[in-house]
Amino acid sequence: MDFELIIVGGGPAGLCAGIYAVRRGIKTLIIEKGVVGGQILLAPEIGNYPGFPSVSGTDLAKSMEDHAKGVGVEFELGEVLRIEVGGGIKKVTTSNRTYECNALIISTGAIHRPLNVAGEKDFLGKGVSYCATCDGPLFKGKKVAVIGGGNHACEDAAYLADIAEKVFLIHRRDSFRAEECRLEHAKNKGVEFITDTVVEEFEGDVLLEKIRLKNVKSGGESELSVNGVFVSIGVVPLYALAEQIGVSVDERGYILVDENQITNVGGVYACGDVTGGVLQVATAIGEGCVAALSVYEYIRKPYWRKVD
Amino acid sequence: MDFELIIVGGGPAGLCAGIYAVRRGIKTLIIEKGVVGGQILLAPEIGNYPGFPSVSGTDLAKSMEDHAKGVGVEFELGEVLRIEVGGGIKKVTTSNRTYECNALIISTGAIHRPLNVAGEKDFLGKGVSYCATCDGPLFKGKKVAVIGGGNHACEDAAYLADIAEKVFLIHRRDSFRAEECRLEHAKNKGVEFITDTVVEEFEGDVLLEKIRLKNVKSGGESELSVNGVFVSIGVVPLYALAEQIGVSVDERGYILVDENQITNVGGVYACGDVTGGVLQVATAIGEGCVAALSVYEYIRKPYWRKVD
Repeated sequence: MDFELIIVGGGPAGLCAGIYAVRRGIKTLIIEKGVVGGQILLAPEIGNYPGFPSVSGTDLAKSMEDHAKGVGVEFELGEVLRIEVGGGIKKVTTSNRTYECNALIISTGAIHRPLNVAGEKDFLGKGVSYCATCDGPLFKGKKVAVIGGGNHACEDAAYLADIAEKVFLIHRRDSFRAEECRLEHAKNKGVEFITDTVVEEFEGDVLLEKIRLKNVKSGGESELSVNGVFVSIGVVPLYALAEQIGVSVDERGYILVDENQITNVGGVYACGDVTGGVLQVATAIGEGCVAALSVYEYIRKPYWRKVD
Repeated sequence: MDFELIIVGGGPAGLCAGIYAVRRGIKTLIIEKGVVGGQILLAPEIGNYPGFPSVSGTDLAKSMEDHAKGVGVEFELGEVLRIEVGGGIKKVTTSNRTYECNALIISTGAIHRPLNVAGEKDFLGKGVSYCATCDGPLFKGKKVAVIGGGNHACEDAAYLADIAEKVFLIHRRDSFRAEECRLEHAKNKGVEFITDTVVEEFEGDVLLEKIRLKNVKSGGESELSVNGVFVSIGVVPLYALAEQIGVSVDERGYILVDENQITNVGGVYACGDVTGGVLQVATAIGEGCVAALSVYEYIRKPYWRKVD
């Protein structure tokens, strides 16, 4: 056995699970295909992780990674290509090698759906955000736009209206998926609606200054001066690996877990954004903790039972 | 209305809820009857809150309190004497005054049951601990004793056996509430059992050095040299205020909440140790976050609905 526990995904949930597991004496590997830290790496400033009044996503990720390494969590940077769960021993194959382990935690996260528009990546953390809850307070007294037409976009816009000087809600259609009451709430808050319109480009010097818009019906182009744009067109959980090994997911792709972060597959646990919920660092941490303590029970219990 | 939200209890769960609530624009008061920070104030070193590889409980509490104050959470140090929840408006009476609010979060915590033995308080954080998960790693290569006879005490002892040089399990009876398999597991790990025995006094210079024991059957007294003692005789949730206003608790006194931290009483939420679970800072934080976001829905939704 190479490891007792392998954690797939090195965001806050996976890192917290790793810290708890190693402190419980469980030999643990975290496999991360990108950069350790996950989605928080996209946040210019995180203000809602208690104890860190204001920290960049990259700094918080580094603190958590150092913490995990310090207690003895091992890391591989590589992509998981295949997992086999037949029998008690699980096999995890990465681009480098195949590992055997007893238990598995899936914390592969979720990604905010991007617009895929010119400049969007360049202004990430410099005006472009995918999380109003996280980054809204940075735009006090400024002009912002929210992109989207669902409940979440309307709530983001109404929420931002309490902070920003001016909020636009830009939607590519003139009908909305959002509930009427939420639309009206945003309107009552002074949110200005721009419909039948898409963003064509993000522009600015260092920070975002304006967006180029196109009316999809008339074809007319225009510019809108904004300091911030919140892209709120949904989230995509990264559930492919989990589904491959028979882990149940809901209709949106979120992994189904019970209150102990246990999936339907024996010895396989999940935590963090890939299990849905409010998608916050705070909740990822809590779920990672619970997942690791469940793994401890799973790994140690057979020894308790062996006694006659 | 004095506040939109009052949070009763200023431990990590309440502090995180306060941070999230204020960032959502909710006018929030935290009432704490002792010192802000809750149970973590008892931990000499916290090593499992991601991002803080090693921090004293008091320092972490201070960081979280400063964080909450920095975003605009208001605090009152005082005891809540009475809560009234009739109608939409809730009234919270402290030793100082009566506040009106729309929503309430109960995060009153739980206390580890103490032995109430001479020296126990003096060596708190200097050898006496109530949490093996939190403080176990501090006793690498040292001698420790666990006090208790339940599953939790046995698990603590078995867990500590992987860390400490020597572990004693001291129990006042010769029969155990713990399941047989867990007892055997502890025995197999080399834990030495001392039964029919109670601790009479904790002794040492600055740090704990030894405990005085008494055999309850023979009356014989003895000394045992240990660096650490883990008191594992249960936890008592502080549910009295919640129960007064009709909030449902389970048979052990933990407040019953759903996955959104909603209790059975409208506009009343609960999070942290008073709701049970694994009693960790990491989980308290996650629950506090969810409770605050549920309060946001509760407070803002009537406005959404007002629209015709």
